[in-house]
Amino acid sequence: MTSQTLNLVPFVDVDNMMRLVHAVGIERFLQELSDYVAEDFRRWQLFDKTPRVAAHSPDGVIELMPTSDGTLYGFKYVNGHPKNTRSGRQTVTAFGMLSDVDTGYPLLLSEMTILTALRTAATSAVAAKALAREGSRCMALIGNGAQSEFQAMAFRAVLGVDRLRLYDIDPEATARCRSNLARFGFEITACASAEEAVEGADIITTATADKLYATILSDNMVGAGVHINAVGGDCPGKTELHRDILLRSEIFVEYPPQTRIEGEIQQLDEDYPVKELWQVLSGQIPGRTDTAQVTLFDSVGFATEDFSALRYVRDQLAEHACYQDLDLLADPDEPRDLFGMLMRAAPARRSA
Amino acid sequence: MTSQTLNLVPFVDVDNMMRLVHAVGIERFLQELSDYVAEDFRRWQLFDKTPRVAAHSPDGVIELMPTSDGTLYGFKYVNGHPKNTRSGRQTVTAFGMLSDVDTGYPLLLSEMTILTALRTAATSAVAAKALAREGSRCMALIGNGAQSEFQAMAFRAVLGVDRLRLYDIDPEATARCRSNLARFGFEITACASAEEAVEGADIITTATADKLYATILSDNMVGAGVHINAVGGDCPGKTELHRDILLRSEIFVEYPPQTRIEGEIQQLDEDYPVKELWQVLSGQIPGRTDTAQVTLFDSVGFATEDFSALRYVRDQLAEHACYQDLDLLADPDEPRDLFGMLMRAAPARRSA
Repeated sequence: MTSQTLNLVPFVDVDNMMRLVHAVGIERFLQELSDYVAEDFRRWQLFDKTPRVAAHSPDGVIELMPTSDGTLYGFKYVNGHPKNTRSGRQTVTAFGMLSDVDTGYPLLLSEMTILTALRTAATSAVAAKALAREGSRCMALIGNGAQSEFQAMAFRAVLGVDRLRLYDIDPEATARCRSNLARFGFEITACASAEEAVEGADIITTATADKLYATILSDNMVGAGVHINAVGGDCPGKTELHRDILLRSEIFVEYPPQTRIEGEIQQLDEDYPVKELWQVLSGQIPGRTDTAQVTLFDSVGFATEDFSALRYVRDQLAEHACYQDLDLLADPDEPRDLFGMLMRAAPARRSA
Repeated sequence: MTSQTLNLVPFVDVDNMMRLVHAVGIERFLQELSDYVAEDFRRWQLFDKTPRVAAHSPDGVIELMPTSDGTLYGFKYVNGHPKNTRSGRQTVTAFGMLSDVDTGYPLLLSEMTILTALRTAATSAVAAKALAREGSRCMALIGNGAQSEFQAMAFRAVLGVDRLRLYDIDPEATARCRSNLARFGFEITACASAEEAVEGADIITTATADKLYATILSDNMVGAGVHINAVGGDCPGKTELHRDILLRSEIFVEYPPQTRIEGEIQQLDEDYPVKELWQVLSGQIPGRTDTAQVTLFDSVGFATEDFSALRYVRDQLAEHACYQDLDLLADPDEPRDLFGMLMRAAPARRSA
């Protein structure tokens, strides 16, 4: 890198993110991204696990989620504003940055609305690969909103899931999910109820958008040996599973201090025993121990997953030039002469 | 704003920031920016004063500095890496964002290396306007590095300072500062020592880059009635003034919990009485009470000042189109159909 380019930071906008996904291929993208997510979970103890910094307001929240592995630093800006859909806006938007710890210089700025959907699905697939019964091919997908197709594609890429049983309280959502996935060769069954959806499923993914304590799954719906991938219960006051399911499952989480506030386990005592996914992935503790066990991944999303996603995107840019350079950093020839640089940029009209 | 533009965020890069400064005019820019800084200090109690979130590493620090007034949210990313100059990089670089609290949507992304230099100088001038003796025209400027010319220009714009007495341990820095300021009509004296520089000065600005506890000013150098604008002592272990000066000055700070760690007053007891600038600016307490008093603004830089700067820049963009639009936010026609948007962006090669 020459000194003339020190001021430039690669930026992946929404259009370029979509181009990158298609250039790599969505299944390969999700598979490789899952590898990055798993690799960073195995390096868990290296990471600076700062709590997210939240600014709450009556209609929503804006959060900064920083983390670092000592070599790279990443943060994500993300908002959550449920009323946004009334004005044609997204409930959640996000962007992120990756920087070099040694210099503090940004290495990548990226949209993260699409990327977060991809990393959430990749993380679910990483957990399921470690926790679901071997040979799991059939997944119930309850809640067919924005995250549903990403989950289906990641489970196909990482576990070989090829049968889907869809259910949503809104049949249009199910129809759209089915139509969006049609070209990928799944065997898809649209179901009339959550009870019907879970029939014969090896894996149950819940990804509903309900705001309040809900019971998408009740205890009698969960058979022996099932892996539950609970994606939707991800903030205080928002859960999807009946408490009894939690009590007979082996529960795996990302980062207990965060999950106890935001996840399904907010329904349990503060010291209820849970296992950490990174310990399973690094071989310190077993995942599933028998085929009859019910396993639960109580997913809320953690900063390291965004870090993995930014790291993966950055590593793709050498091969796929899906970015533009932003002139983000002032770079005077003489570092102490910022004012001189500013004055030399004056339009040539000094004769006036 | 139509729905077709909801995905776009105005971005002011380094080149556009310089264009904007020249389009407005640097003196007017600093004067108006000072008004924004003062206005936000007067609204101090509205602000969410989150501590900065720092990631420390052996060679430096990366910080996120968020704040909000309940209507707008802003944050700055800033690094500090003293060794960077060895590789031709800046010690400090920064960028920031302003968002709408009601929707969480970003309103502005901006470079902030230049903008921080401008807001630091504007804040110094706001404090001096309230604290220096009326009619102060002569300023000693000790430390003639990257911040020095900005200080001179802000004090000219806000207080009418037109005589400068420059000193730096590096005569080349003084020569460059003098040359950079030549066109603005100051009466400039290059001095051979700090002692010479302070002779006859109404205001003494210290803006040196020394890393350790230093004594740029000793007690006998500070005469009655002087206002000291201490800009350089801004992190733990970095101070510029002899402790005895602090003991006979009326000390004004931005945010006491931060200044006690980072400012000159780290040399004093934790409960040593200091006054808050916002209280002076909002009329709650007096600033200078007599012409013989020594006043000290112990400046370290606070998140609200970055917020004011971002707010000012944003308000200029309607008149001065010094920005580009970034496609930062995914904006599907149907908010729940992120995957469909991604798939519809596939290159047209489905016949393969």
